[in-house]
Amino acid sequence: MLLLPLLLAGLVVLALGLVRLVGRPWLGRTILETETTSGKVFDALLMLAIALSVLAVVLESDPLLRQRWSATFLRLEWGFTLLFSLEYLLRLLVVAEPRRYATSFFGVVDLLAILPTYLGLLIGGGQLFLVVRVLRLLRVFRVLKLGAYLQEAELLWSALIAARRKITVFLLAMVTLVIVIGALMYVIEAGNDGFRSIPVGIYWACVTITTVGYGDVAPVTPLGRFMASVVMLIGYSIIAVPTGILSAEIGLSVLRPPEPTASASADSPSPQEQEPPRPVVCGDCRKNGHDTDALHCKYCGAGL
Amino acid sequence: MLLLPLLLAGLVVLALGLVRLVGRPWLGRTILETETTSGKVFDALLMLAIALSVLAVVLESDPLLRQRWSATFLRLEWGFTLLFSLEYLLRLLVVAEPRRYATSFFGVVDLLAILPTYLGLLIGGGQLFLVVRVLRLLRVFRVLKLGAYLQEAELLWSALIAARRKITVFLLAMVTLVIVIGALMYVIEAGNDGFRSIPVGIYWACVTITTVGYGDVAPVTPLGRFMASVVMLIGYSIIAVPTGILSAEIGLSVLRPPEPTASASADSPSPQEQEPPRPVVCGDCRKNGHDTDALHCKYCGAGL
Amino acid sequence: MLLLPLLLAGLVVLALGLVRLVGRPWLGRTILETETTSGKVFDALLMLAIALSVLAVVLESDPLLRQRWSATFLRLEWGFTLLFSLEYLLRLLVVAEPRRYATSFFGVVDLLAILPTYLGLLIGGGQLFLVVRVLRLLRVFRVLKLGAYLQEAELLWSALIAARRKITVFLLAMVTLVIVIGALMYVIEAGNDGFRSIPVGIYWACVTITTVGYGDVAPVTPLGRFMASVVMLIGYSIIAVPTGILSAEIGLSVLRPPEPTASASADSPSPQEQEPPRPVVCGDCRKNGHDTDALHCKYCGAGL
Amino acid sequence: MLLLPLLLAGLVVLALGLVRLVGRPWLGRTILETETTSGKVFDALLMLAIALSVLAVVLESDPLLRQRWSATFLRLEWGFTLLFSLEYLLRLLVVAEPRRYATSFFGVVDLLAILPTYLGLLIGGGQLFLVVRVLRLLRVFRVLKLGAYLQEAELLWSALIAARRKITVFLLAMVTLVIVIGALMYVIEAGNDGFRSIPVGIYWACVTITTVGYGDVAPVTPLGRFMASVVMLIGYSIIAVPTGILSAEIGLSVLRPPEPTASASADSPSPQEQEPPRPVVCGDCRKNGHDTDALHCKYCGAGL
Repeated sequence: MLLLPLLLAGLVVLALGLVRLVGRPWLGRTILETETTSGKVFDALLMLAIALSVLAVVLESDPLLRQRWSATFLRLEWGFTLLFSLEYLLRLLVVAEPRRYATSFFGVVDLLAILPTYLGLLIGGGQLFLVVRVLRLLRVFRVLKLGAYLQEAELLWSALIAARRKITVFLLAMVTLVIVIGALMYVIEAGNDGFRSIPVGIYWACVTITTVGYGDVAPVTPLGRFMASVVMLIGYSIIAVPTGILSAEIGLSVLRPPEPTASASADSPSPQEQEPPRPVVCGDCRKNGHDTDALHCKYCGAGL
Repeated sequence: MLLLPLLLAGLVVLALGLVRLVGRPWLGRTILETETTSGKVFDALLMLAIALSVLAVVLESDPLLRQRWSATFLRLEWGFTLLFSLEYLLRLLVVAEPRRYATSFFGVVDLLAILPTYLGLLIGGGQLFLVVRVLRLLRVFRVLKLGAYLQEAELLWSALIAARRKITVFLLAMVTLVIVIGALMYVIEAGNDGFRSIPVGIYWACVTITTVGYGDVAPVTPLGRFMASVVMLIGYSIIAVPTGILSAEIGLSVLRPPEPTASASADSPSPQEQEPPRPVVCGDCRKNGHDTDALHCKYCGAGL
Repeated sequence: MLLLPLLLAGLVVLALGLVRLVGRPWLGRTILETETTSGKVFDALLMLAIALSVLAVVLESDPLLRQRWSATFLRLEWGFTLLFSLEYLLRLLVVAEPRRYATSFFGVVDLLAILPTYLGLLIGGGQLFLVVRVLRLLRVFRVLKLGAYLQEAELLWSALIAARRKITVFLLAMVTLVIVIGALMYVIEAGNDGFRSIPVGIYWACVTITTVGYGDVAPVTPLGRFMASVVMLIGYSIIAVPTGILSAEIGLSVLRPPEPTASASADSPSPQEQEPPRPVVCGDCRKNGHDTDALHCKYCGAGL
Repeated sequence: MLLLPLLLAGLVVLALGLVRLVGRPWLGRTILETETTSGKVFDALLMLAIALSVLAVVLESDPLLRQRWSATFLRLEWGFTLLFSLEYLLRLLVVAEPRRYATSFFGVVDLLAILPTYLGLLIGGGQLFLVVRVLRLLRVFRVLKLGAYLQEAELLWSALIAARRKITVFLLAMVTLVIVIGALMYVIEAGNDGFRSIPVGIYWACVTITTVGYGDVAPVTPLGRFMASVVMLIGYSIIAVPTGILSAEIGLSVLRPPEPTASASADSPSPQEQEPPRPVVCGDCRKNGHDTDALHCKYCGAGL
């Protein structure tokens, strides 16, 4: 209880001392940048530390391992927490706009990765939430060839966004279907102990229609098995829909021609995007939707 | 028994009173429209009531919950039924063409959502059919940005329609295949108690070929396992077909540009479909490959 | 034994009598054609008889049903066999080229559908092969709008043919992968009774990599489960390949533009296919592969 | 121990004798070429021997078969090993550049296919690694119509390479997701003996999200089943992503026309890749969208 403020004060003093010792510019190059030599070493060590800390939390959950190595796990947990706390403080001190970092995605994740251990002192339990640390691994995208990978993620994400309405319609239809099928099977398999209630029937419908098929709940009556077969065959045809949607969307976003002048400076195409990529608007009739190779407006015939 | 006519009469009187009290125009704006303030409040409350009523039916099916809260469930069921009955009567009174509403999809669903409780009084049992209420949740499409979502559903549906013959061929081939494989496995796994009869074998073939794989019926002989492996590998290749069909169809329907002027009158484009669909050849330069909505040749600008 | 020749002779006499009684032209219109009134009635009854005969064979395999209704099943089997024998003889008598019919796909299937019952008299057993009758259901394609459906099947089939080399490569790689993984898991899960031998390991690899997942054989050691997780995640990415292949092939065959003049006579576009659809060959350098909208040969610059 | 050098010396003498006896040119035609008569016979026998040797190793792993036929299996193993050793030596003697063959993919596989038996003499055990022999079956691609199949594999491989960054992003996201879900289910299903630790939870998440669904670990609490249903439905939508990625990539690579002149020298296109890949702009009319193999602008015919 009394230890906590002392600990935090010590960490702050240590962080301030480190900044004074090695200088803010050098620390900034090391912690924030990924291209300098010291930055690469720092990133590699950080990735390793994150991976090990996640591994420690995961392994600690095993009853046998926890019993045998409880002291080691406790030491590891506190070691990683103090290390990440120091890193968090240094980032806050080194970064240009501390508030912006603290409220950014990675800033919040960095904080969540150290909080559970401290809260564990006050409340007890809750070490489980240390699994949040795995989210820190997403930093790997920033360490590796940042731009390109984020661009790919961007592309996947924009395909999902473009298809979001189709996916919403699809998911709503699925939920409705799953509830109706679950209720139906509950009625059909009345005697079967597996289908105790409609919620269990819905769970079974989910397991079946997504082709997961645990088998912990399964029909045993002939009619139930017939119904299940129909659900599978029909359901399989339906479930092909999201794949089809995404294939089409990804196909479209891959097919869209890359800007012709961006080949040399592909990494930062932000300032030079004057010409709008796709929708060429006709100067005469203000309509768009023309092909990339169109010479004349396809609606009014004026030159584009 | 005697209660039912009394109850219904009371509801009708209440509905008529409500109409007289607040006025038909205001009720119409509230119940039928989705953009007015009162309409939005009404829709939100209705969605909530529908979701809660479905939840009540689903939870009531659980033996433990039913035993413990039977009185509460009964009250909830009657509460929701009376509420939905009142809403149904108000819709009938407010709508311009009551007969058309009563025979529309949502009109029938609204009726089916209240009937089981009343029938339960006469016959007993049958409360299960209250699950039909989940279909009322589809109203959410009308509450949220109606047009756009329905258009997406339309697109998915038209992709299914366009591929309906391929899907029919595929399903017929699947049914034939599944019966033959089921009979074969029944012969091979003769000693295995799981494969008691050909219907069970067909059920197994469905479970396997759709990759659901419960495991309640599984081959145990070496030959049976070899056959099953072949069925899986070959079957998996075959089952990729519907995904491929739908991907292609959705891709096509996404590629087709939406009609620019059809946004207002999207519902009935039937009478004006004289012009031949795709391959238009330019009269001047004899080129084709123009879009379906092109008025002028995109190469030479001549009218099409 | 002695019954069989008598039976067959009786059937032949009956068939010849029928032909003489109602006349060969009328029988031909009924049995062979699908558009005449009598042909439609005949086809509907035939489909029904085929479906019922398959149902009888399938239900007979159930031990309980067979015990209870053995006499009925025997009668049904002989009834359907005699009916189909008569139909087979009539087809042979009515058809223009009996030999060609007898060796065609449907001719062989029609014969296989009646043989097992007769062989059962001689040898005993073998009634199981009556399941072949399900193949007769494929006649439904000829009964329903024949051409269109066969065209769709043709399209699916040609997509499979076009992708046959990719599929061969894929299946060979899968077989190799599955054997290696099976052997690996056999070594890792040495103590687990489920993985008794490498063949069982291969069976497990098939079950896992196709995402069927029965669970009758499953890893229990931590290392085995880790390996299995890797196999699933990697394998899932690999198994997306056939879907991708087929999607692309079907997409291509759907995308191929229909002949511009064939809109009116879409059913028989055979005689009028002078202009080759895609590969426009340059008159100067004899190369093809030009885009549909190319004005000049992209290799030598000559006008196309 | 002493036997091994003797055995190897004998093999070398035998190989040298064979080369002298039948002549190096004839041996080269037989072993290395696939079009000559003797080459075809040799390849067919080799494929058969490889398949049989793999079958022997696989069957030997079965406890019952091993007990009963142990002597036969030993003899088979040594027979195939000596045969393949002789073939390996002959290839080394006949090939133009022995060192290049020895370090090539097939050279290493050929060596790995014989090593375990010899090592078994020295160390004991390890016969299991003879399964490597299955990799020798990949030679079948060289025996069958070599070029075409390798081209298809090439195409699939290049589609995978083109999508490698998307797949990396996807796999990293999956690993993160699976760890978080696994930890969550470990907390939710605390009482369930199946979810003993977070690693087991992660294993369950993998099994569920890839729709394998063994059922050896399955949720039993209502909240756990609800979570599992959500994971399935959401996860299923996510897992459609790799299929979509690959479909798009394969679709693109199928759409790209094959190089017309590259059929003869398809193997080494490395030195001549000066020209920039896609977006070529015409110097005269400033248009782009030309194919990668276009020499002239397809709109105005000017050279590119």
